Amino acid sequence: MTNYFSSNFKLGILGGGQLGKMMLYETRKYDITTYVLDPSFDAPCRLACNHFETGDLLDFDTVYHFGKKVDVLTIEIENVNVDALDKLEQEGITVYPSASTLQTIRNKGKQKEFYQQNKIPTAPFIKFANKAHLAEGITNNRVKLPFVWKSTEGGYDGKGVSVIKSGKDVAQLADTECIAEEMIDFKNELAVIVARSPKGEVKTYPVVEMEFHPEANQVEYVICPARIDDQVAKKAIAVALQVSEAYQHVGLLAVEMFQTQDDEILVNEVAPRPHNSGHYSIEASYTNQFEQHIRAVLDLPLGATESKVAGIMVNLVGAEGYEGDVIYQNIAQIMSMDGVTPHIYGKKQTRPFRKMGHVTIVNKDIAEARKIAEEVKNTIAVVSEKKRIKI
Amino acid sequence: MTNYFSSNFKLGILGGGQLGKMMLYETRKYDITTYVLDPSFDAPCRLACNHFETGDLLDFDTVYHFGKKVDVLTIEIENVNVDALDKLEQEGITVYPSASTLQTIRNKGKQKEFYQQNKIPTAPFIKFANKAHLAEGITNNRVKLPFVWKSTEGGYDGKGVSVIKSGKDVAQLADTECIAEEMIDFKNELAVIVARSPKGEVKTYPVVEMEFHPEANQVEYVICPARIDDQVAKKAIAVALQVSEAYQHVGLLAVEMFQTQDDEILVNEVAPRPHNSGHYSIEASYTNQFEQHIRAVLDLPLGATESKVAGIMVNLVGAEGYEGDVIYQNIAQIMSMDGVTPHIYGKKQTRPFRKMGHVTIVNKDIAEARKIAEEVKNTIAVVSEKKRIKI
Repeated sequence: MTNYFSSNFKLGILGGGQLGKMMLYETRKYDITTYVLDPSFDAPCRLACNHFETGDLLDFDTVYHFGKKVDVLTIEIENVNVDALDKLEQEGITVYPSASTLQTIRNKGKQKEFYQQNKIPTAPFIKFANKAHLAEGITNNRVKLPFVWKSTEGGYDGKGVSVIKSGKDVAQLADTECIAEEMIDFKNELAVIVARSPKGEVKTYPVVEMEFHPEANQVEYVICPARIDDQVAKKAIAVALQVSEAYQHVGLLAVEMFQTQDDEILVNEVAPRPHNSGHYSIEASYTNQFEQHIRAVLDLPLGATESKVAGIMVNLVGAEGYEGDVIYQNIAQIMSMDGVTPHIYGKKQTRPFRKMGHVTIVNKDIAEARKIAEEVKNTIAVVSEKKRIKI
Repeated sequence: MTNYFSSNFKLGILGGGQLGKMMLYETRKYDITTYVLDPSFDAPCRLACNHFETGDLLDFDTVYHFGKKVDVLTIEIENVNVDALDKLEQEGITVYPSASTLQTIRNKGKQKEFYQQNKIPTAPFIKFANKAHLAEGITNNRVKLPFVWKSTEGGYDGKGVSVIKSGKDVAQLADTECIAEEMIDFKNELAVIVARSPKGEVKTYPVVEMEFHPEANQVEYVICPARIDDQVAKKAIAVALQVSEAYQHVGLLAVEMFQTQDDEILVNEVAPRPHNSGHYSIEASYTNQFEQHIRAVLDLPLGATESKVAGIMVNLVGAEGYEGDVIYQNIAQIMSMDGVTPHIYGKKQTRPFRKMGHVTIVNKDIAEARKIAEEVKNTIAVVSEKKRIKI
């Protein structure tokens, strides 16, 4: 086995945001040497890695030359130059997730087609090359209103996703390749994180339940375990395992799913990395998702995925109307609540709906945790000294 | 309240070893700006702090000038220049633990006298100015053999402590101020960590039970909760609170105690900072000791100190006969065991009995955790490629 610990081994991470930052807690814990590439000098990962480089994650040469310096390369964001990863793989660098998996996942059209090909349940959809074709599809009734529009590339945190209720909503959409997906009348949005190592060891985290902010389309609460029937939970885990197996994925794969009114499970989308829906694991799980991702990509044994206690995660996003140097209003107040841990990502500037941090609430009693989570949400606010003046 | 999070506030830490390194996980989590001073450029804290300085922790000017740069100053090692801290306090820098507390604690003679003055139960002792006086004390029967010899200054991890069984053992001792302490026939060595904030909020962690390595005099297992009677646990916590109150201590105070054959509690010694006996808390407690120390010195609300699950900690010390580039033999094997997390401090070179890391074992069942802990201890070894050749 490679000696990863306090050795010359080098792990590369593409992307230096909050997911990378939380990964670095684990590489520090194991004393694994890390190289991080991110376009921003002020990226949350700048501290705590061994080598930090600024550079464009979508530039072939930048990613290729960065990758040549490390032994194993992983990501904390999908939006990277995949051709460079492909070439690195050919030249013997270990890349997880693989270039081909990433190629499929980061394009929402290809991702959906992959599910169809692999008989993975997912909402019906039609792919369009551009906006004109989409408009035509609506006119000739191939697409029924309302539907969910998704740009195939570059979507993240609700960007590149819109609910289209009437033909005239199309005007505001970007002119890009897209899919029109049937709107699912769902009971719950669920997620399962699957960890898989190169030698094929597989573990799944418990099913979590998500609540989205109605306007920002960002997750507001993640609740673990999901308060659903055992049979539905088993089905969700089986589907998640099917997805991981189909991709032959290595590392973490977060599988987001809908539970329909008929208790069917439909895969919405996946993320091939630690995910917002797994942040609760830092405080609640035997092995948190960031440690698990590191274990998986290094082909170390996977850790236990069970929970010690119930966990709820609240995202901390910038309050509407505020822009500038961030202030976490009433943070001391939430720290006095039982089992509450704030995580501050280290972005100095807030703006409306920007992901600035998250708060985990753990408790032996999930109902109690849910109550405290709501108190947390009603108490803390991510603001700035001056209210933004609207023009 | 001061805005600590993603702000210009600066926390200084004297010492850059493993305790500081684990504190930095928490300052990163909260995005608190940190300055660290340590004599070694390769200190485990070099990464993950905002500013790292090399310098002598015992040098007045070095500590003073470092302290002037920060808003709140704390320590991860007691062996620092206390006069500089005293002057910094006079000049308005917040220093926790305070210079006067540190002055008393870091000298084992003064620490024992403090317990006497404050009616805190402790083993009987006599202080001697040097080795000749000690020898005289033995000759004229003021000191009864066997006894425990402790150098009043500079002792750490078993250094500066010896069990003296006969008069001739005295020859090998350092010629220094020392105490001769009555040997206690104890059932258990216990510890309680007390957290106390400037506004006087106080919380105690559960009583832990320690097992020492018979030769190296270093802790081998720390078991939480201690498997002792409730009445004894209550007494231990009461004594620990008495000690914290007497010192008016701010931050963490680890109180090490003996449980005698008669179930009396005697204070052995204290450490005014996160402590080896609290490492289990990272995985087992609602609030780990490092986060708690940060909360306390910043006068933030203290977190819950209860455990989610039982925790056992095994120290990883360099194996006898090995010196050089460290290898963690069979580390992957222990990572496949249930609820096992290794912590690697990041020291590149091993030597016999050097503290290189620790392993935490958590489990809902303490007996199961104890079994796994023994497997861990029998499996992992801290070695180097070549066995040291003895001359």
